[in-house]
Parts: sequence; C-alpha cells; structure tokens
Amino acid sequence: MYIEIDFNSDEAIYSQLCDQIIMGIAAARLNDGDPLPSVRQLADDIGINMHTVNKAYTVLRQQGYVKVDRRRGAVISVEPDKANALAELKESLRVDIARASCRNITREDVHKLVDQIFQEYDSLRGK
Amino acid sequence: MYIEIDFNSDEAIYSQLCDQIIMGIAAARLNDGDPLPSVRQLADDIGINMHTVNKAYTVLRQQGYVKVDRRRGAVISVEPDKANALAELKESLRVDIARASCRNITREDVHKLVDQIFQEYDSLRGK
Repeated sequence: MYIEIDFNSDEAIYSQLCDQIIMGIAAARLNDGDPLPSVRQLADDIGINMHTVNKAYTVLRQQGYVKVDRRRGAVISVEPDKANALAELKESLRVDIARASCRNITREDVHKLVDQIFQEYDSLRGK
Repeated sequence: MYIEIDFNSDEAIYSQLCDQIIMGIAAARLNDGDPLPSVRQLADDIGINMHTVNKAYTVLRQQGYVKVDRRRGAVISVEPDKANALAELKESLRVDIARASCRNITREDVHKLVDQIFQEYDSLRGK
C-alpha cells in the first residue's frame, strides 16, 4: 500500500494516514472488502509508532470507512451515509472557502478546481 | 470577538481558533487592520491556555492573515497571494472530495454546496 506522510507537516500523522487511505478509496486503489495491512506491518513500513496507526484505524472505523473482520483484521468497508457526509463536507468547505475568499479566489475558481479534482479521480478510476 | 470552540472535537484548539478567525475575515466581521485581542485576553475569554492562543496567532501570521504591529499587537492583515492560496485550496479540496466521492456525493452536489457557502458569506458581508 502506498502511503505518503509529511513528517514536517503541522497535521497529525494519524490524520494524514486517514486522509491517504480515504484518497486511496476515492481513486479506487483501495476497494470495498480489501484488507488493510496489520497495525504492526503498516507502522514498520512507514516508520511510525503502532499507536498512531491504531488511532488512524479507529478513526476510519468510527467514520465508516473501515470494518474490523475477526479473521482478516481491518478491511475497507464504506458505508454510503450520504446525508451525514454532505453535512460534514459542507462544514469542511466552509473553512476552505473562507480561506479562499480572503485571498480573492472567486466562486468560479472554486468550481474549476472541483471539476479538475473530480476529473483526476475519474481518470485514476479508469472512467 | 465571537469565537466558538468545540472542546469535544478531534481538531486541535489552536487550529479551530485559526479557522474561526479566518471565517470571521471571510464574513467581514474582521477586516484588514482590525486589532485582535491580546493573547492573555483571548485566552481568558475562551478559557484556554495562553500558549494555545499564541500558537494560533503564530500560524495565522505564517499563513499571512495577521501581522504584529509593535504598538497595537496582532492585527488582521491579509496578503492576497492568490497563486499560493489556489494551490493550498486544491490540496484541501482533494481530501474533501475523496471523502465525498466515497459516499456517492456527486460533482453536482459539491458545486451546489460551494454556491450555498458563497451565498452565505456574501449575505454576511451585506452583498
């Protein structure tokens, strides 16, 4: 599994790990039912603490991206709770757009970026 | 100054404080040149540690939303570096849209939310 962590970032490592796994799902590199590496293995691969991987897996489980299977360990399992997801997305966009509009970024600029990103994920998914 | 902190959130308090101040600028509740409360005063008002307020002010200064004036202390000062801001926005949208597309949120849904949020800030600014 390809995970990129920025050790100089202000963002917590567990949170970067969650983002990377969610972006992997969006790009269809990770699919429903795919097993994730064990906590120990992923911690060794990236060179981070096992507690950090454990925290990421716990958050992903709480947010409905991962399930724990008794035999296979953590597996990707996306619950399509759209209503909740829309509310969360709006909260997050509110902060992004506040930052953007302080810097003279227009509504049209944001729409263009949204289209670019959807196109990127579509092409990664081979659509 | 109206600041809302969620003490149960997973997000660090200094980071919530930054977001709230940036959303205040987007909504024109805070404008270029407006002084921010002193670190001690804001820490007392919200009931948080002075180090936390200090960290938020430092990050806001690094990100170009705040300047330190020798006589007036921290004041709002927005550098309109649009190119950088676009790159940052894209990074952040990439994670948001990954989460969204895992939950069957469409490109059209995202465009609608973006419009709603711009309208909210416009009406707060009295546009």
